[in-house]
Amino acid sequence: MPERIRHSVGMSYPDLIRLRSGAVGASAPDAIAYPRSKAEVESLLGACSRSGVSVIPFGGGTSVVGGVTADRGRREGPLVTLDASALRSVSVDERSLIATLGPGLRGPQAEEALRAHGLTLGHFPQSFERATIGGFTATRSAGQASTGYGRFDALVTSVEMATPVGVFETLETPHSAAGPALREVAVGSEGALGVIVSTSCKVSPRPTTRLYGSWVFEDFQTGADACRRLTQGGCAPAVLRLSDSEETRVALALSSAGDARRRALGSYLSLRGRAEGCLLICCWEGANEDEVRADEARGVRILRRAGGVGLGGAPARSWERGRFDGPYLRDELVNRGVMIDTLETAHTWTGLERTYSGVCRALDEELGGRCVRMCHLSHAYRDGASLYFTFLAPVTPGEEISSWQRVKRTACAAMVASGATVTHHHAVGRDHREWLQPEIGEVGVEALSAIKERLDPTGVMNPGVLLPGP
Amino acid sequence: MPERIRHSVGMSYPDLIRLRSGAVGASAPDAIAYPRSKAEVESLLGACSRSGVSVIPFGGGTSVVGGVTADRGRREGPLVTLDASALRSVSVDERSLIATLGPGLRGPQAEEALRAHGLTLGHFPQSFERATIGGFTATRSAGQASTGYGRFDALVTSVEMATPVGVFETLETPHSAAGPALREVAVGSEGALGVIVSTSCKVSPRPTTRLYGSWVFEDFQTGADACRRLTQGGCAPAVLRLSDSEETRVALALSSAGDARRRALGSYLSLRGRAEGCLLICCWEGANEDEVRADEARGVRILRRAGGVGLGGAPARSWERGRFDGPYLRDELVNRGVMIDTLETAHTWTGLERTYSGVCRALDEELGGRCVRMCHLSHAYRDGASLYFTFLAPVTPGEEISSWQRVKRTACAAMVASGATVTHHHAVGRDHREWLQPEIGEVGVEALSAIKERLDPTGVMNPGVLLPGP
Repeated sequence: MPERIRHSVGMSYPDLIRLRSGAVGASAPDAIAYPRSKAEVESLLGACSRSGVSVIPFGGGTSVVGGVTADRGRREGPLVTLDASALRSVSVDERSLIATLGPGLRGPQAEEALRAHGLTLGHFPQSFERATIGGFTATRSAGQASTGYGRFDALVTSVEMATPVGVFETLETPHSAAGPALREVAVGSEGALGVIVSTSCKVSPRPTTRLYGSWVFEDFQTGADACRRLTQGGCAPAVLRLSDSEETRVALALSSAGDARRRALGSYLSLRGRAEGCLLICCWEGANEDEVRADEARGVRILRRAGGVGLGGAPARSWERGRFDGPYLRDELVNRGVMIDTLETAHTWTGLERTYSGVCRALDEELGGRCVRMCHLSHAYRDGASLYFTFLAPVTPGEEISSWQRVKRTACAAMVASGATVTHHHAVGRDHREWLQPEIGEVGVEALSAIKERLDPTGVMNPGVLLPGP
Repeated sequence: MPERIRHSVGMSYPDLIRLRSGAVGASAPDAIAYPRSKAEVESLLGACSRSGVSVIPFGGGTSVVGGVTADRGRREGPLVTLDASALRSVSVDERSLIATLGPGLRGPQAEEALRAHGLTLGHFPQSFERATIGGFTATRSAGQASTGYGRFDALVTSVEMATPVGVFETLETPHSAAGPALREVAVGSEGALGVIVSTSCKVSPRPTTRLYGSWVFEDFQTGADACRRLTQGGCAPAVLRLSDSEETRVALALSSAGDARRRALGSYLSLRGRAEGCLLICCWEGANEDEVRADEARGVRILRRAGGVGLGGAPARSWERGRFDGPYLRDELVNRGVMIDTLETAHTWTGLERTYSGVCRALDEELGGRCVRMCHLSHAYRDGASLYFTFLAPVTPGEEISSWQRVKRTACAAMVASGATVTHHHAVGRDHREWLQPEIGEVGVEALSAIKERLDPTGVMNPGVLLPGP
């Protein structure tokens, strides 16, 4: 794919549609810059800021919320995409278990560099193969093992961000009480304040023990309550993923006849004479076998008491083998004219049921009987959890984007009405921009705008992303 | 003590000196307001902002960095202290383990309210008896059990802050990717952006099991390395406190003949024919006895391998009985003409030795041979730890504050030179103001100033605290 086209979109459903319709040319950047050092990033940002050239920071290009998509309608003038792929430095403080990583490192490149030290980040989002450290930092990414290792923003210990007015660098200290934690302003800034040029993160010894477990629950609420008991009991697995009955049914339908999930769940359902169940995938892992075994043993007791029926480890391993396949399957479905997208949110354990039922109802109302909508809970915290919805529906050719916008808006409104966040880990980008104010309030938007105006006085940084454009 | 005098100072060494010299009258606030509701806080801030009346938010008045001290030299005009003591609401979400607490609740009041639910905050700073939820939030407080329960800022799940331009409220969600985490701007804002009117925090089941351990190490570095192994091994105790040899010696000298620390350490030293050692106090605690016992057992193995010699639980229990006594002892020493203060910082495990030796050298150079300076490591993280220094020295009457300023500046310069933070949990206040820029950089100060100017356009909020005054 030509350079400018490749840098003109991310991987959202509208991006895929625009790419297939040939409609990306108009929004493609005028140039792609590949800075080879922090100093080059700094001087590029300074020059662009002075001359009013817009800059879109670009990592792996895997944004699903329009985070790297030029918004030509909003801002006149030339536009440069800053591709961070040449910034791949690695340095490791083994004693403090901190790795300092360049923003251009893709997931597998970072893991490979850390493997030499016997370490891992433990960060495996579905975009792992292509997404970068800079992108993880700028979007508060979460991965499939984040229940165990922590979300990416919880791994970050310090950050260096080039802005149009200079470099912002936070101190490398395990904690500080020197005023507001400005690191948390750079993390999640989505390229709208500057370019992440270095991220230091907590790293962990590579796991030597992995214990898989698969469980089935009668219904989603009972399963969710079991997940709550695991995290509040201090023995949550690194990977924890509870599918609702629809997602469980689809996983069975899509699996091959020999798939372990199909066999184990199929026998459970027929033995119990039940039509459906909710599958929970667990993987406890770590570098200390005794500790992992102790956590798993406590976890198993909790899951049994909470109504779970154990199906053994094979179904979990079967899930793990296909865990980065989702985006490829989606590409194929879009080619066949199916509208498919995902929505993710989070709420407290008390609020979660309200959010689940509200979003399901909203999707059903928008998509009617011909759609598939399914959900899993995949990041559990002591105080709550995330929900991740997938929907598929037939769509009239030519109406893909307007239909998608309608569904997206209704679903987001349902999340917000239930008190949940509009995004647990996909970030704001352009697609969630209208929902930022309901989430952080008028005073929050004022505070964020004030920072933006001070660090990016000519408004060249990723215009239209995060904050409403001019 | 008259109302205005009581609200004119915190509890720093200079505050104690000013109080004793009768020099506080000039800086006392013109009025004390006791709002009874969030709405009253809002209308008070609005009125003060419009009319240019300065506002100092006041919780327990335990700031040791000049956080509640009027700075009359910097700003003309009337000044009101906003005492939050009437704002003591409590509500608990037991399912999500979140408590929403009013800013005026003192430590014991919050704990008492939570005890009715079988819960605890686990937050026990030395100021516990007087300090408040609002103060904990505004200053990123740390407590004696924070290694186990987390620093106060890590407990906060959402916050509501009244500002002169309206209320800033963050969403109650276990995590969000909706841009920068502005909660982390309100937390640590030290009254310079607004008044904390509500804080939601993670709470824990009250511990039913407590296992004490006391250990001695040959030197501070060996002991610190043992603490590193405990936290990185995932079995750190809730309370962990390693004294250097000087602090160990002073603790022995101050203890009574029957004190368990004295007996246990005394026999250890004489048996080994050693003059000194470093005492480590541990307390593993939790609501699940099996889990606590398992953590302790792993911890004990790690401590033994790291060179620790176990002294049994009695010395740790003896420390615990006197753990809130420090401030009272300090008052008495100040009455007797001794300069006494504490300094605290944090660094990565790799940087910690450099910080320890740098600050020790700085104190020795400033105070000479007639001083006592001692240190403990009391908050350990996977990536580093805090250091807490205490110094005592004779001081010439009338020169208390200038002598203190000289020592403080030299010690802070040594911290900063070593790459450590200038404050791990005491906050910036007025006393660390000059060190904020070295810590967060010019761009950081710009970002923070931009928020301050937007939320507090007439500059009435706690003028002179956190950011350099006009």
